[in-house]
Amino acid sequence: MEKLYEGKAKIVYPGPEAGTYRVYYKDDATAFNAQKRGTIAGKGVVNNRISAQLFRYLEAHGVPTHFLRELSEREMLVRQVEIVPLEVIVRNRTAGTFAKRYGVEEGRPLARALVEFSLKNDALGDPLIYDEAALALGLLSEGELARIRELALRVNEALKAFFLERGLELIDFKLEFGRLPDGTIVLADEISPDTMRLWEVGTGEKMDKDRFRRDLGGVEEAYQEVLRRVVGGAG
Amino acid sequence: MEKLYEGKAKIVYPGPEAGTYRVYYKDDATAFNAQKRGTIAGKGVVNNRISAQLFRYLEAHGVPTHFLRELSEREMLVRQVEIVPLEVIVRNRTAGTFAKRYGVEEGRPLARALVEFSLKNDALGDPLIYDEAALALGLLSEGELARIRELALRVNEALKAFFLERGLELIDFKLEFGRLPDGTIVLADEISPDTMRLWEVGTGEKMDKDRFRRDLGGVEEAYQEVLRRVVGGAG
Ligand SMILES: Nc1ncnc2c1ncn2[C@@H]1O[C@H](COP(=O)(O)OP(=O)(O)OP(=O)(O)O)[C@@H](O)[C@H]1O
Ligand SMILES: Nc1ncnc2c1ncn2[C@@H]1O[C@H](COP(=O)(O)OP(=O)(O)OP(=O)(O)O)[C@@H](O)[C@H]1O
Ligand SMILES: [Mg+2]
Ligand SMILES: [Mg+2]
Repeated sequence: MEKLYEGKAKIVYPGPEAGTYRVYYKDDATAFNAQKRGTIAGKGVVNNRISAQLFRYLEAHGVPTHFLRELSEREMLVRQVEIVPLEVIVRNRTAGTFAKRYGVEEGRPLARALVEFSLKNDALGDPLIYDEAALALGLLSEGELARIRELALRVNEALKAFFLERGLELIDFKLEFGRLPDGTIVLADEISPDTMRLWEVGTGEKMDKDRFRRDLGGVEEAYQEVLRRVVGGAG
Repeated sequence: MEKLYEGKAKIVYPGPEAGTYRVYYKDDATAFNAQKRGTIAGKGVVNNRISAQLFRYLEAHGVPTHFLRELSEREMLVRQVEIVPLEVIVRNRTAGTFAKRYGVEEGRPLARALVEFSLKNDALGDPLIYDEAALALGLLSEGELARIRELALRVNEALKAFFLERGLELIDFKLEFGRLPDGTIVLADEISPDTMRLWEVGTGEKMDKDRFRRDLGGVEEAYQEVLRRVVGGAG
């Protein structure tokens, strides 16, 4: 089957019906705008299964998503959307880019969750953007922006609770949203340890892609452990 | 007299009364976070006189400022404030950092003026910041943020009209605000061709620090011409 798009973490193929895509999850890992490259054995399987589980969970909690069903270990069927060219980041504690950009320590709790936007453009380095600029550049409408912020916060509330029951604290995560043909905004792309920070409750141990970014070792093990807890249910 | 602070463009001395500062305007010019350095002969005189004139004009148009009076060619007396650590940028057309950051051409008109904030921190490169993050970092209160945005837009309306009457289009500019001891927010720092982009109406010729940044020549002449129009009144 002919590829429609090969990204850094996934490959997109036409789906069996019009308006659907088949998404294949790879083991390839990149960080720092693809300056660092590697492989995490079994990551594709883990991320496909975690994403599927979380999309189902979020649908049940009032968040419309692109997810239709799992097709195989590494593949899911999704609804084709027009991706809104924003990376939507929700932060519960300072970490990563935020901590570095503003010169603050990692792990400082944020009284209210922050919703942060970057222009989704690898060539420009996914620059931070603010509401008025996103509207001025015509990336989306004011109504869409309000809806995306509302959904992002709803995802945060739902996922914080989900992971806390499994002994993990949700520090931050990146979402992408898209438009269905009728204009409805739905959550798209993936939700996995590649796109979230999860810290072990109690010890603060990192259970996400930071193990790869920062060469902490035990990368595969952390991904497998997150999968085990996600599918295993609350503990 | 002992310096309190020497910045890239100005020197701050204690003023004659408590709660005042004497600000001395230098000819030193820097660009690109001080990577480029030089001198613009007479700039200190021009910027002091333009800033004084614009502060007086803005006071008359409902914008409280730190300005008290001119002391000499290169010096003004101002009220001491606690600077809010934000650079407040207002944009009427795309230019400079904005155009580069988002990969758009310079000079595209913006339907509504954009108010943009950067964290005022040279060591961090004055990173772009958004409302929620500025509040989370405790840089200012929600009320102060709303007030600063309101004043920034009022400054824009007043200065756009002022310069248009003088054959210049106000493209963008940077403001700093501060707190008086009673908490009142006032406009501080300077407003000059160092901190604004001004394009000649009709030809689009640059009449501001971009002549220095981009080695366009005629730097001193442009500064003198802006001063001439600012003090000479509408033409
Ligand atoms: N339902 C969907 N419809 C259309 N495109 C989608 C959908 N879900 C995700 N995508 C897009 O499919 C691609 C998935 O590939 P991957 O995540 O590997 O890309 P990437 O390397 O991160 O690059 P980029 O996200 O910058 O394009 C992304 O471009 C993503 O925005
Ligand atoms: N009324 C005021 N009270 C107190 N500080 C002021 C006032 N007006 C301006 N300032 C501050 O005085 C300094 C003026 O110096 P200058 O503009 O040369 O600094 P700079 O090199 O731009 O560095 P920076 O602005 O990053 O400190 C600035 O730090 C400015 O924020
Ligand atoms: Mg991606
Ligand atoms: Mg300054």
